[in-house]
Amino acid sequence: MNPAEESDRKLVDSWTENAEAWTQVVRDQLIPSRRDGTDAAIVMACLTLGAGPVLDVGCGEGWLVRELGLRGVPATGVDVSAPLITRAQERGGGAFAVATYEDLERDANVVAGPWHGIVCNFSLLSDPLHPLLRALRSRLDANGRLLIQTVHPWTAKGDAPYRSAWRTESFDAFAVPFPSPMPWYYRTLASWLEEIAVAGLRVERIDEPVHPTTGSPLSLVLHCRTA
Amino acid sequence: MNPAEESDRKLVDSWTENAEAWTQVVRDQLIPSRRDGTDAAIVMACLTLGAGPVLDVGCGEGWLVRELGLRGVPATGVDVSAPLITRAQERGGGAFAVATYEDLERDANVVAGPWHGIVCNFSLLSDPLHPLLRALRSRLDANGRLLIQTVHPWTAKGDAPYRSAWRTESFDAFAVPFPSPMPWYYRTLASWLEEIAVAGLRVERIDEPVHPTTGSPLSLVLHCRTA
Repeated sequence: MNPAEESDRKLVDSWTENAEAWTQVVRDQLIPSRRDGTDAAIVMACLTLGAGPVLDVGCGEGWLVRELGLRGVPATGVDVSAPLITRAQERGGGAFAVATYEDLERDANVVAGPWHGIVCNFSLLSDPLHPLLRALRSRLDANGRLLIQTVHPWTAKGDAPYRSAWRTESFDAFAVPFPSPMPWYYRTLASWLEEIAVAGLRVERIDEPVHPTTGSPLSLVLHCRTA
Repeated sequence: MNPAEESDRKLVDSWTENAEAWTQVVRDQLIPSRRDGTDAAIVMACLTLGAGPVLDVGCGEGWLVRELGLRGVPATGVDVSAPLITRAQERGGGAFAVATYEDLERDANVVAGPWHGIVCNFSLLSDPLHPLLRALRSRLDANGRLLIQTVHPWTAKGDAPYRSAWRTESFDAFAVPFPSPMPWYYRTLASWLEEIAVAGLRVERIDEPVHPTTGSPLSLVLHCRTA
């Protein structure tokens, strides 16, 4: 296993090992940036899609599926983490299934759709992305959109160079202890555009929600459609 | 005249008033970011277009037209500033004409093309941009691209809020005195994408040249084509 494959395996495993901690921080709203605007940003972006079923890829414990269901948008969530999907199913509000991103790439029958919207809310954390993005594109209906919310490359850069690379999230700044650090792939803006283009998609709009008091960008929301 | 029109008028006038100072800083290579990578970035981006005539909109004293000519790409430059076009014509290396952006918007016969490439190298400084961008789109050939290089919104933000707004360049940090401060419109990434989309163009690639030692992004290069 090469270092990138090893990082990817640890990334996937972390979502099972951290499932309880993650469920708690989401349900108790313990992640400040989500309260400050990124939850609202992705819900609003989904509502721009109009009616039609939405697939939430990397749905975690299911908050976005439930939120969309409450607003009349039928949604289905998939996640690699069985314990997170169990927690999602306990609350309901939509359909949920366990699937790996490789499942989505290999088998067009897994959450086949077609979907009017597919959303990846802080759930594209590996490299490369274009095989998954291509698989998602093939599940969109004729006017379908893929929405990607991710950390803002400029804000998330920190003191490290502005260069795409694997990094590690320790979750030390979170309000509850997380058992496993999570490798994740930091990606420049240019790199996001490249992965999206290679997958046969194009970016037609970008939202940059800002912090209500500091004015700093909280995230990027990329609105994509078939190129 | 409302404040935005006043800013735009001062912006246009500054390029006549600062023509000599600008010619000196470009020809003596006195702008560090240009040496550090943005000149090379736009030349390389132009060369990805393949053969075919290029229009340089806001060409100034003509360095990019000359540079492309030396590499076998026939180029034409237009600029609002008569003294800058005079300096460009003195050096030659391509065709040059005085034209305002309003001329380009109103009269399709001005540098009619069609052009295989149109380039705006740090020359989109006003607001709104979509009327000009739409006029440029209509001058592209079937496989034509519009290339826009601009300050990197995240680096150029400075201490001000991350919000599109008119600002003023004093040129105080430049190596020679400039007679006139220049109003310019600071634009977020989201705003760039919006102006481009409203003009019927789409972004298919973004380059982010970085400083060779600090690693900070020096600029954005937006590769656009008809949507």
